[in-house]
Order: sequence, then C-alpha cells, then structure tokens
Amino acid sequence: MSLTESSATDIARAASLASRRLATLSEADRNGALTTLHDALLRNKSFILEANAKDVKSATREAESGNLSHSVLNRLDLSRPGKYDDMLKGILSVRDLHDPIGHVTLRTLLDDGLVLERVSCPIGVLLIIFEARPEVIANIVALSVKSGNAAILKGGKESTESFVAISQVISDAIADTQVPQSSVQLVRTRDVVSSLLDQESFIDLVIPRGSNDLVRFVKDNTKIPVLGHAEGICSAYLHSDADPEVALKVIVDSKTDYPAACNSLETLLVHRDALETVFPDVAEALLSKGVCLRCDKPAKAVLTKLLPATPVHLLQDAVDSDYRTEFLDLTLAVKTITPSQPGSLAVDAAVAHINSHSSKHTDIILTSSRGVADTFMKGVDSAGVFWNASTRFADGMRYGFGTEVGISTNKIHTRGPVGLDGLTIYKYLIRGNGHRASDYSQGKRKWKHQRLSP
Amino acid sequence: MSLTESSATDIARAASLASRRLATLSEADRNGALTTLHDALLRNKSFILEANAKDVKSATREAESGNLSHSVLNRLDLSRPGKYDDMLKGILSVRDLHDPIGHVTLRTLLDDGLVLERVSCPIGVLLIIFEARPEVIANIVALSVKSGNAAILKGGKESTESFVAISQVISDAIADTQVPQSSVQLVRTRDVVSSLLDQESFIDLVIPRGSNDLVRFVKDNTKIPVLGHAEGICSAYLHSDADPEVALKVIVDSKTDYPAACNSLETLLVHRDALETVFPDVAEALLSKGVCLRCDKPAKAVLTKLLPATPVHLLQDAVDSDYRTEFLDLTLAVKTITPSQPGSLAVDAAVAHINSHSSKHTDIILTSSRGVADTFMKGVDSAGVFWNASTRFADGMRYGFGTEVGISTNKIHTRGPVGLDGLTIYKYLIRGNGHRASDYSQGKRKWKHQRLSP
Repeated sequence: MSLTESSATDIARAASLASRRLATLSEADRNGALTTLHDALLRNKSFILEANAKDVKSATREAESGNLSHSVLNRLDLSRPGKYDDMLKGILSVRDLHDPIGHVTLRTLLDDGLVLERVSCPIGVLLIIFEARPEVIANIVALSVKSGNAAILKGGKESTESFVAISQVISDAIADTQVPQSSVQLVRTRDVVSSLLDQESFIDLVIPRGSNDLVRFVKDNTKIPVLGHAEGICSAYLHSDADPEVALKVIVDSKTDYPAACNSLETLLVHRDALETVFPDVAEALLSKGVCLRCDKPAKAVLTKLLPATPVHLLQDAVDSDYRTEFLDLTLAVKTITPSQPGSLAVDAAVAHINSHSSKHTDIILTSSRGVADTFMKGVDSAGVFWNASTRFADGMRYGFGTEVGISTNKIHTRGPVGLDGLTIYKYLIRGNGHRASDYSQGKRKWKHQRLSP
Repeated sequence: MSLTESSATDIARAASLASRRLATLSEADRNGALTTLHDALLRNKSFILEANAKDVKSATREAESGNLSHSVLNRLDLSRPGKYDDMLKGILSVRDLHDPIGHVTLRTLLDDGLVLERVSCPIGVLLIIFEARPEVIANIVALSVKSGNAAILKGGKESTESFVAISQVISDAIADTQVPQSSVQLVRTRDVVSSLLDQESFIDLVIPRGSNDLVRFVKDNTKIPVLGHAEGICSAYLHSDADPEVALKVIVDSKTDYPAACNSLETLLVHRDALETVFPDVAEALLSKGVCLRCDKPAKAVLTKLLPATPVHLLQDAVDSDYRTEFLDLTLAVKTITPSQPGSLAVDAAVAHINSHSSKHTDIILTSSRGVADTFMKGVDSAGVFWNASTRFADGMRYGFGTEVGISTNKIHTRGPVGLDGLTIYKYLIRGNGHRASDYSQGKRKWKHQRLSP
C-alpha cells in the first residue's frame, strides 16, 4: 500500500515488472494465492464490515439529502444478507475455472525438427476503474491473478473506507503467496486516474466497471485499449410471421425482467403486417407491466384503436432520439418497419435500422422463418444476435463462461460477455535445431507446413 | 472514384454501409469478385505499367537529386521481372485460402432448444495507409474482400499515377461483381488522412504499411485501434551451453539474411561464460559478413584479444541507446549477461533485459537445455519467442498462413504475423423458441451448459 502515494508511472512500471513474473507462475501457485486471499477475507470479515458500515453511514446521509441515489447505497452495503459470502464464494469459483493460460491453439510442423506453436498467455497489465460495489475488488483481483495479469485497481469515492480495508487485507494476504506484491495494486488517491490513463507503455488494457458516464470518460481520455460498453441499446424486430406466444414471452422478458440492465430491450421494431396481428397482445402485456410505449404514428394509431383504455401516460409519440436512447427503465421505443423500396425486404430495413441505431450490444428477431432469421443474424453487426430468445441472455454466466469481466461492444479482441479468455492473448513459439530462414528462400529446404494436433 | 473528393465522413459512412452488405455475401460471391479483379488487372497490365512508368520516372529524378532512396525507387517499379505476375498470382492465392468467415468456434446447449454459437465474422471497415509499393493495393483489396471487410486505401505520393490507374481498374471491375462499390474506396487526396483517422464511429481498424515513421504517426493520431508495429528490435540470447554450430547458423541468419527487415536481429546478449567459448566463432562469422559489432566492455575485450585482426570500424563501443535501436543494417549491439545477483539465473537477467528493451516483436534463445529454453519462452513477453531458430521465421508465409497483413506487436486482438484471421472477430448467436431469462433466475428452469461440437 506504500505505492498509493507514488506517481502513476511508478505504479504502472511496478505492475509491468510484476506482470512478467506473474505470467510465469504455475496454475497451482496462482490458485493457491486465491485460496489464501479467500481465507484472509473470511478471517477479516468483521474488520471489513466495520469499515463498510462507515461508508454506508456517509452514503445514507448523502442519500437522505438527495445527493446519492438509493441504488448506489444498496450496491455499497456489504452487510446485506449473502453478499459477503457470495463475494467469498466468487473467489473460489474463479479459482476452480479452467486455467486460461498455456493452451496450445495451433501447432504446425514447419519442417523436420521445426515446430510452431501458438500458446495462450496473459495480456500483461490491467487497469480497472470501478464505482460503488466494493465486492468488485475481490472479484477483479481473483480474475486477474487467475489469468496471470497484473492489476491496478481504482475504486469510487463512496466506497473509500471499504476499499482501504479490503486493500489492506488483500495486500497482506498476497505477501504470503508466490504472486509478486506489485501485481495487485489498489490505488486510493483520487487525482491519479488521468495520469494512469496516460501510461500506455506499461498498461495494456483498461476495464471501466460502472456507469455509462465512467466508460465514456475513460474511452475519451486514454490511448490504451478499453474493454467495455458505454451503453446497451438493444432492439427486437417483430417479423410478420412471428409466433404470438413466443413473441409475447420474449419481448416482455427482454423489457421487464430487469429494465436497468444493459441487456434490456430499448427499441421494438414491428413489421407493418404485424401491427394489427401479433403486436397488440405484446403491447397489452407490456402496458399491463407499466411499460410506457413511445410509438411512431402507425403503431400509435393501431393501439389507440385496439386498446382504447390505455392510460395516456403509457402511450406517447416517439421522437427520433428515442431510437438512440438507452432508457434503462420501463420505457420502450416502438417503430414500424416497412420495406425501404418496392421489392426489398422488411427484414433488410430492420437490419439497416439496427446497424445505424443500436449500440452493437444485443439485438433479436422474432420470426417463424429460419430464412428470415438467418438474414437477420448475418446482417446485424452486434456482439449478440438472437432468434426467438430474450436479449437478457447476453451475460457471461448465462453463456456458461463461469464469470464475466464485463460486456464488450468493441469490434476487435473480444466481443459480448467477456470471460477469462478475454484477459488473455497468445504468443508464437518456435522450437528448432539451428534452422535458418535463408535455406528456404534459397530453395535448399522446403516447407512442410503440416498441421499437427494441438 | 467520385468519392475521392468527398469528405472523410462521407467516405467512412459509405464504407460502413457497404461493409454490412459485404459481410452477408457468400464465399462464392467474394471469391468470384477476386477472380474478376484478377482478370481486370491482367487485361489492363499495359495501361497500369504505363502509369507506373511515370511514377518511376519522377522517382528516378528525385533519387538522382538525392531526395529519395534507391530502395523506394526499387519498391515502386512494377515492371521489374515477375513483379506484376506475382501481384496477380497473389490475388488468386488469397482467393483460394480457407474462408475465414462463418466458422463456429463454440457451440453450447444452454437448455433444451436454446443453443449458443460463437461465429467468426468480418470486423467491418479497415483503413489501410501505405507508402511506395503499388502492388500492395491489389494485395490489400484481395485480403479485405476475402475477409468480408470494407477497405479504404490511401497510397503514398510516390505512387500516385500507379495508384490512380490501379484504382480505376479495380473500381470498374468491382462494379461487375456482387461486392458493393463502396466497400473498396481508393482515396487519392492527400490531406484527407487526418480526417479519416478521426472517423472512429465508422472505421474499426487502421493498418499502416510502410516505414516506422508512418506507423508512429498513425498511432499518435487516432483513437481507432491500429494493427502493426512501429519497430522490430529483436534480440538473441546466447546461453553458456549453446551448441556452437547451431548458434553460429542461427545468429548469422538472423542478422544477415535481410538486415533491413523488421524480423532481423538487432541485439545479441551473451552469457558471460560463453564470451570466450561459443561467442568468438559467432563474432568472426558476423565480422566476415561485414557486420559491425557494438560491444560492451567485456565482449570487446574478448574480441580484441581473440580476434586482433578485426578492422577498427567493425568493432565499436556500445552506448546505452544501441540496445534500444533498430539498426536495419549490418550493425549489431552486443551485451554481456551476468546473473543480476548471487544465486539468480543468467537467463532471468536476459529475459529482464529483453522485456525492458525489445519491441515485443521476436526474440530467441540459443541453448542446449530444454529447461533454460522453457524459462526464456515463458518469461519473454514478445509476439514470437524461438529456441534455436532464426528470428527471420517470424513471417506469415513462413508460419504457413498463406499471406500476411502485417506483423502486430499489440498486446490485444492479434499478435505476431497477422493472417486473414486477424481481420475477423466473432459474434454470439442464440437460437431459441420463446426462452425467457427470468425462468432461470426464478428457478423455474435449470441451465444445461453442455458443450456441443462446433
């Protein structure tokens, strides 16, 4: 913890040096460190909860005076039933995941005695910036150690006391393991973030975990690659031949299961031929759950006619910006889809709308036709494209990854829910016996280029 | 070509729109376009060579007045024996590579009737900025079309006439194919580069192909991810137990096969116990090829004693900056490696030197010990780490990738020689039948998470 007063460069350089040693540790050493960490956090539960209570107390005052939302207060409170134990269990479940390091993903016999391998390895140094939830610290430290990456963590001001206490326990625990001390650095000083974002020669990846504003701030202020998503504007396209029951179940779940999540539905595109067939029942179900529908003219006309009892505040006129808005509550933008010109397909118009309006997170189609679904799934350029299934499935646990670092809407490296694999890259190894490249260019030897089983 | 006068935003937006349609084309359509392209370039050979002759003429004048290097002049000349035919053959060999799009790399049964797939897909829009070689245009267009990515190409001023002629032929040819016109845009205006580098909402990846200065300029002037390497500072570590014949062959090949290449050797690290055993023969062989050795004191003392006839200009004192220099000619920095403290290993000192001095391109070890080699290969954080094999093997053709987009020293996405795979990413597809996420969180249904064969 002595490093918290040091400059960003010192922190980043120390992380970089530590990352090289961490990358060479065995799986047993890395897993052993996670056990030690788990035990230390278990042993120091009351110490940490006392510190956390101070944060909760300050935050309660802030919330009462209206300066802090109650959801932040809830996220902060580590003493809520099951929360601390879940944090502890989380460390062990990351420990027990398959080792992401050292996988041979390609093996080629280049020539007799000359073998090329591509082997997975840690990326190097991660900078993780997060807001309220103090249990994220344990989660992120576990993911970093498991994947052999050094981590620099910076928490939010609401969780300062919890952060200090957890930092101290983690630092002391790490000292008893093979993991180099500087491979987990918890930075408490507030003004160091901008300087850390400048350390592109030492830091390889930034992972912001928190509000859209935080992600946007980070993306706008660094040249280091950023893993994450600023927003989740997810759409559903209701095709004319959608099964009514499937459509209703999936759309209601996508919108109402947890409206504040990034994988919740924000825009519903309705084929014009579905307006008076499948759509009304879907709309009625949404309205009955309190969802406000912001409709374009054709959709509103249909609902006004068929559902005349709808309260005025739940049936509004859409404006253009609604189709680019992440509402994160019980509001849904509705747009009618017609083929863009005679002879063209409605599904192409839906795909075009999504590609120019969505945030490339997750978009779905409701249709009974495999052909239409295939066109949609090929055409939509998003991390997740689903057919007759809820947007809410876009999640690392639900995908079966065991854990999730975040959801990426980037176009390179890793996309969608990011598991441990997203924290790895690879290197190429060649083992030879005095092989010269010139022998091949001069025709003295010939390439074999024979794929071997990895 | 009407787009060359448009603004960077128009160019980038058009590429983005075109990329969505290109991404849905079948392999046959993409391959067919490459055949059409090949045939058009074959048919218009004399037209293009006439334009190229104008560039060569201007460049010759520039070279004679000392304003242009002869190597640039050589790279410019498309009429050199075999060059045009190689360009044409290159298009067909890219066409005949395995389709990188549509591979299912993960398939999981989430629950009955609910299947998750991870499928490879194009990245989207590439911006390729290159310098002299006009044949790169055909190569890049072929790679982009094959991988389903839209490409915006910007050539260097030396190849203006060739670029205009090739652009025209390619644009006309593309018009006869399924590939949308705007998916290949060749930009001739010079001042548009900076504006293109600002188009991060439409352009997904920048690939600079040319000098280190070009790569550095691009990296410093965009927020779009850049694929490439600014420099190749490759090192060899000569361990005390290296086989003399292997060491000599590999080091001489690494340094002298093609000194101007990024995968050539720039630094030789010599274990102190190898100074008077294996090193002298290696040094003698290098000196006989005209390599100038910039040595630290111990290495120079040994060579002065054992090779007293060495010309003074080939045996120089090293300065610190030599160990961070990409010489790109017949100069090699030599440094003696001693364990950093009693009880530590020399190989660890070599690894530490490389991790703090090399450019993470390719580094090699010469040793007879598998254990020492393993320590080196695990510890060195570079795209390529070889044992008893030349640095010059770091190359897409030599790795068996069929072609190469460039060599990446990035820490994320793709590392080392980049083949077609480096121009792809993936998306997650789910096919269901009305599945709701809430059924799983409420315990009404249970996850199966059963891995299926892709």
